[in-house]
Amino acid sequence: MPDLSPVLRQIDQGFDASVARLQELLRFPSVGVDPKHEGDTKACARWLAEQLAGLGMEASVRPTEGMPMVVAHDRTAPGGSPHLLYYGHYDVQPADPLELWASPPFEPTIVEGPRGPRVVARGAVDDKGQLMTFVEALRAWKAVHGSLPVRVTVFLEGEEESSGKSLEPFLEANREELAADVCVISDTGMLDVDKPAITYTLRGMAYAEVTLHGPGRDLHSGMYGGAVVNPLNALCRIVAGLHDEQGRVQVPGFYDDVREIAPEEAQAWQRIGFDEKAFLQAAGLSVSQGEAGRSVLERVWSRPTCDLNGIWGGYTGEGGKTVIAAKASAKLSCRLVPDQDPAKVMAGLKRFFEERVPPGCRLDFTDMGTSPAVRVPTDSPFLEAARAAAAEVFGVPPVLIGCGGSIPVVASMKRLLGLDTLLVGFGLDDDQVHSPNEKFELVCYRRGIETHAAMLGRFAALTR
Amino acid sequence: MPDLSPVLRQIDQGFDASVARLQELLRFPSVGVDPKHEGDTKACARWLAEQLAGLGMEASVRPTEGMPMVVAHDRTAPGGSPHLLYYGHYDVQPADPLELWASPPFEPTIVEGPRGPRVVARGAVDDKGQLMTFVEALRAWKAVHGSLPVRVTVFLEGEEESSGKSLEPFLEANREELAADVCVISDTGMLDVDKPAITYTLRGMAYAEVTLHGPGRDLHSGMYGGAVVNPLNALCRIVAGLHDEQGRVQVPGFYDDVREIAPEEAQAWQRIGFDEKAFLQAAGLSVSQGEAGRSVLERVWSRPTCDLNGIWGGYTGEGGKTVIAAKASAKLSCRLVPDQDPAKVMAGLKRFFEERVPPGCRLDFTDMGTSPAVRVPTDSPFLEAARAAAAEVFGVPPVLIGCGGSIPVVASMKRLLGLDTLLVGFGLDDDQVHSPNEKFELVCYRRGIETHAAMLGRFAALTR
Repeated sequence: MPDLSPVLRQIDQGFDASVARLQELLRFPSVGVDPKHEGDTKACARWLAEQLAGLGMEASVRPTEGMPMVVAHDRTAPGGSPHLLYYGHYDVQPADPLELWASPPFEPTIVEGPRGPRVVARGAVDDKGQLMTFVEALRAWKAVHGSLPVRVTVFLEGEEESSGKSLEPFLEANREELAADVCVISDTGMLDVDKPAITYTLRGMAYAEVTLHGPGRDLHSGMYGGAVVNPLNALCRIVAGLHDEQGRVQVPGFYDDVREIAPEEAQAWQRIGFDEKAFLQAAGLSVSQGEAGRSVLERVWSRPTCDLNGIWGGYTGEGGKTVIAAKASAKLSCRLVPDQDPAKVMAGLKRFFEERVPPGCRLDFTDMGTSPAVRVPTDSPFLEAARAAAAEVFGVPPVLIGCGGSIPVVASMKRLLGLDTLLVGFGLDDDQVHSPNEKFELVCYRRGIETHAAMLGRFAALTR
Repeated sequence: MPDLSPVLRQIDQGFDASVARLQELLRFPSVGVDPKHEGDTKACARWLAEQLAGLGMEASVRPTEGMPMVVAHDRTAPGGSPHLLYYGHYDVQPADPLELWASPPFEPTIVEGPRGPRVVARGAVDDKGQLMTFVEALRAWKAVHGSLPVRVTVFLEGEEESSGKSLEPFLEANREELAADVCVISDTGMLDVDKPAITYTLRGMAYAEVTLHGPGRDLHSGMYGGAVVNPLNALCRIVAGLHDEQGRVQVPGFYDDVREIAPEEAQAWQRIGFDEKAFLQAAGLSVSQGEAGRSVLERVWSRPTCDLNGIWGGYTGEGGKTVIAAKASAKLSCRLVPDQDPAKVMAGLKRFFEERVPPGCRLDFTDMGTSPAVRVPTDSPFLEAARAAAAEVFGVPPVLIGCGGSIPVVASMKRLLGLDTLLVGFGLDDDQVHSPNEKFELVCYRRGIETHAAMLGRFAALTR
């Protein structure tokens, strides 16, 4: 195994520069979903390709019908080395509501927090800060050794926060180029700054938009109120029926394929010492609400959900307007768990709405995309290597955790490239992902870079 | 009773000039709510005062903190004559969306329609065309007889379509000057060009805005979904409970003071021959929805409602965003019927929401204003005189109708001046009030002038 300590020294000496590069990356308003940021998003991809080329990698920006892919290869490792495929995404969520940001979302700001300095910006942790942990680890290895200890391909996309439409066609069209032994993704979290974690389950997703059309035009609520369907009230009524009093989702067949977790899994989760109170506090809440009789971890890691993500209709400006709106809309998504079929859930959701359309109304139901839940094998040598690497950096072994979020690419990697994924991430629950004032603790950034450096060394010990 | 026929001849001979004056009035873009039309609105008030002064009335423009009032007195009637207070408003709704107008909204255009010529302009019927029906009737009487047969005060305001904030203080400050025997308003409708109507009930209103606050910030629906309250779903759940399966409003005490209409009223409504199908068709609907077991007329004229006027929360832009929003909001209003206490309804509405706030959530409830329903006495000699006058002009007696909308000034006249109001209006359901291409049928304008002329004559027969 190559010597790690000079690499760690290099990371330490170069850390300020690593932070500066992260800030440079965060300055791109790469809101891929927003057409007016198309140019910014593409510029962000070019910047990343230049960074990787600067490490001596064979880097290219690859156009798609949407946002481009960045692909970079390094072939400096000894023959017979394992081949790692590092995945990240450079697009970010929209920054609104802007007025809730303490500093401009695309002017990354270093702020002192209870755990030391942090960088505040949209994308700070999701996923620019996290993808930079492996980029900077590669940089440190190269700086010290002039080469990497394993064969590496870096693959970065720009549609993770939006449609993700280009990903699978690109994977299919470039199977050979992207072939590897395992995929590594840093887009998940730890339990705390000194409690590393490796994620082994991810929830899937079924996302839909509905519009309920009623009257042919907006009506005067005096002239018509009481005698005509009100699409706003009607939509609320349908939505209210999505859950019963026990918090169980009422979509037909929703729980058919949902399995209870194994007893040993349940025991392992209890040992984690998850702090429910802190978790809720980070969300500005004091109580949990969800399926009756379930712990918070179960609710988030192993149970499916159905949540509205947006609702709108009628007059929403200042003051009052006495209108009965012609239509009402909502965006909603189900988080899915292993063994649930996303297509089946989407069909059930559609049926649920269709069966409840009031007389005189018409429903538009749009399938906005699905992805299955993922369960990563916990007995692979790569996962063992990652555990050992994290233990070396943190001084304690990482725990295996679930994640309530979805990383659709994990399922795509498996299905299209046959790759299992290592989910080694460095975020924290209070990082404000997708919210105003998103941040990444610099201590997490540093440990992330160190852990990836240690992983590179340990992967090298695994001959193919 | 003074002789009406020469007055009717005068109206006929002068009708083109009456139309020209209406067009002149319609050219003022008196959008009182829009600061950039403040000058136009005030100019409109001055023009009206000049018109009334031209009839020999003692007319003045009276400043308020907002748009001015126009007050004009005529004292040419014999002593002991009844005293009529004519109310109208010279401000109009904003004209947007402009692109939907076939001709510019403030260039009144005479267009041939299925019922003959009509004038198309913002304010054509609401309320400039209607207020001109009594102004032109006064003019014709003066032209023929040199005096009016009754004591008349004309009172025109410029904030009816906006805040209406100046009205009540002005009424209070000028009680003596505005004292009269009855108020007359032309701001309502007929059943058709040859089916005159007098409106005897108006619904009231209680308007509120609610915001349900949940998490302290927008959350990632993956990280938190299933374990935390979702304010959007929670608000929908509360709203869904506002009505039961029978369409009855579930606000505590809501129906306590609601009386069933009298059997003779119900019979009278059936005789009206109201065309439910046409009413719904005009709204782009084929079915009515509301309280079970009620006719459309009952639902609109005699039953209270609770309708959402707007709802918003979470992500409402293009594409998908997997957010659990920190809060959700709605605007909603109850239309009220006679004997309901608006304050009591508002308190019940507030309690309804407060009692349903889920654990961990907080409610903001804003009272946006209330006004009581109105029922005009149907046995007054003034109403009898108006019925006879309309019957004389139209050849058929007017029907007594309800109105689902609200005209807050009617309650103010009663409360502050002790005056009942005669609601004799000449609009039609398809006049596009508040919409693009607002119009007033010239046949309605002519019959309106004639009816007011006949009413003046019949009022004269009622000694004080």
